[in-house]
Amino acid sequence: MAAESSASDAPVVVALGGNTLLGEHGPWTLDQQLAVVEQTAARIAAAVDAGYEVVLTHGNGPQVGNLLLQQEHASETPQLPLDVLVAETQAQIGYLLQQALDNERDAQTDSMTIVTQVVVDRDDPAFAEPAKPVGPFYTEAEAAEKPFETRRVSDGERPFRRVVPSPDPVEIVEADEIGQLVERGNSVVCAGGGGVPVVRGESGLRGVEAVVDKDSTSRLLAEKLGSETLVILTDVAHAYVNYGEDDQRPIRRVGADELRSHLDSGEFGAGSMQPKVEACLQFVEGGGERAIITTPEQLTDALAGDAGTQVYADAPAEDEL
Amino acid sequence: MAAESSASDAPVVVALGGNTLLGEHGPWTLDQQLAVVEQTAARIAAAVDAGYEVVLTHGNGPQVGNLLLQQEHASETPQLPLDVLVAETQAQIGYLLQQALDNERDAQTDSMTIVTQVVVDRDDPAFAEPAKPVGPFYTEAEAAEKPFETRRVSDGERPFRRVVPSPDPVEIVEADEIGQLVERGNSVVCAGGGGVPVVRGESGLRGVEAVVDKDSTSRLLAEKLGSETLVILTDVAHAYVNYGEDDQRPIRRVGADELRSHLDSGEFGAGSMQPKVEACLQFVEGGGERAIITTPEQLTDALAGDAGTQVYADAPAEDEL
Repeated sequence: MAAESSASDAPVVVALGGNTLLGEHGPWTLDQQLAVVEQTAARIAAAVDAGYEVVLTHGNGPQVGNLLLQQEHASETPQLPLDVLVAETQAQIGYLLQQALDNERDAQTDSMTIVTQVVVDRDDPAFAEPAKPVGPFYTEAEAAEKPFETRRVSDGERPFRRVVPSPDPVEIVEADEIGQLVERGNSVVCAGGGGVPVVRGESGLRGVEAVVDKDSTSRLLAEKLGSETLVILTDVAHAYVNYGEDDQRPIRRVGADELRSHLDSGEFGAGSMQPKVEACLQFVEGGGERAIITTPEQLTDALAGDAGTQVYADAPAEDEL
Repeated sequence: MAAESSASDAPVVVALGGNTLLGEHGPWTLDQQLAVVEQTAARIAAAVDAGYEVVLTHGNGPQVGNLLLQQEHASETPQLPLDVLVAETQAQIGYLLQQALDNERDAQTDSMTIVTQVVVDRDDPAFAEPAKPVGPFYTEAEAAEKPFETRRVSDGERPFRRVVPSPDPVEIVEADEIGQLVERGNSVVCAGGGGVPVVRGESGLRGVEAVVDKDSTSRLLAEKLGSETLVILTDVAHAYVNYGEDDQRPIRRVGADELRSHLDSGEFGAGSMQPKVEACLQFVEGGGERAIITTPEQLTDALAGDAGTQVYADAPAEDEL
């Protein structure tokens, strides 16, 4: 599989799940955060050193949640809307990630963080039904007093969270500039948290209170950059059939039709594996060559075709299995 | 003065004072912030439309202060160090500024925000004596319990603030990429808050708890970009002799020797006009053609040579006064 094991000219878009930046349980000290970021950066650096041009995107759930919580606790300071907070997390995570990545690569300084806006459609049906939980957990009484929509999302003493719309990404405002920087040899960190959501009106762009799924935005970015490969990194080495059961089975090389049938039969967890699979399907069905789901540890092997869930438009031939 | 009234090929570095982003008294709502940002952006847009390529830098004092206060109030969240918070303010302000600037320019999308690191020398004498106040005000009892150095900076009930080193900027890590983006026609917002302060060690760059003066960093950036003109925008139209007294006199066109003598005789307020004048002097004494101090309202006129304090290396000839 020579075509897969050699580096391509177009950049690989690599989406980092929140759990590749922070562990699952918080709160985390900065040293703990840095250790996880450095570990992830080492895996990315190995891929870059293997010749792949990489554009990094990342989640921001815990980080934007902390900012929301912090400004609630300091009511004497301006309460900034979600679009501004998403921008802040892009720099917070991007700065740590770019520094760690450069330092893993013999103290180079090629990495950059670009504040990235993503245009969404103000008529997207998601705006009619906010469904994406963000920020702190509230008691029912607390939730009732909030100036925003909340929803019961769990059990226990504080089962309520704010919910916001999660519209589809339509356009990545800074895509051309990101592409140019990549062509010049920069490793670019961008579109963090799915991008800063904006709508386009007569007077230009304006932020909206929403969050865009980071896997979906990463897919769109990969399309815009002409990437052959979209990689979604998470804390499991593959997507699985019968995940968590005795007979769970990793999905290795798979065609879109088969993967979609697993998706339709509810194999993948909502909010975790499901959006990753959906982004992979949309990428290869839209003309992308290959989409991968795996862990940071497996990244370079997966790029060579030897690890992870490898999604293609067409079903693999017998001799490829 | 044809050379001054036509646009130059090299970008103009324009440093925005905190008071061109926020008024002097807080707390501010987001709408109030946006109104000030939009007003400033309109002035910058006029200069861009007049043919000047502009690189924008900005202060972040109130914004980083709010982040410090917010995370103190939410002790259950990770307490991030100053370098990370400075990065966050770069995106917070940069995002609002780039959007406002684009919208002022017929809904273009040429503006970009770059997270910018500035290298400082770990042997800079500033590290031996932290002197720059940041963040919230404390009572003496509160200050005594803080895990960082505080100093009495004012009178009243809460006269203490945290103080951090303010070392000189040595290198702007992303300068080359910023220059390339400008050459491609992008208006770049960068080096916010004086840049994210980092030191260079054997394993690469690492953030430090410090803040770099934004006028000084803007001067260094202008040098690196080969700018002919450095502009420092603030809330007064000129630097003045005898400022605030009955006989105050605006400084219009001035040579470095005369301006330095005013500086040495204490004409300029520490922490306000003094660092601006110092940055201007350092720029023209280091080979820069011209440095300007003025308001956003006067920007385009000042670029044409017709407003503000215009600083040159040499004293003006008689017919230029």
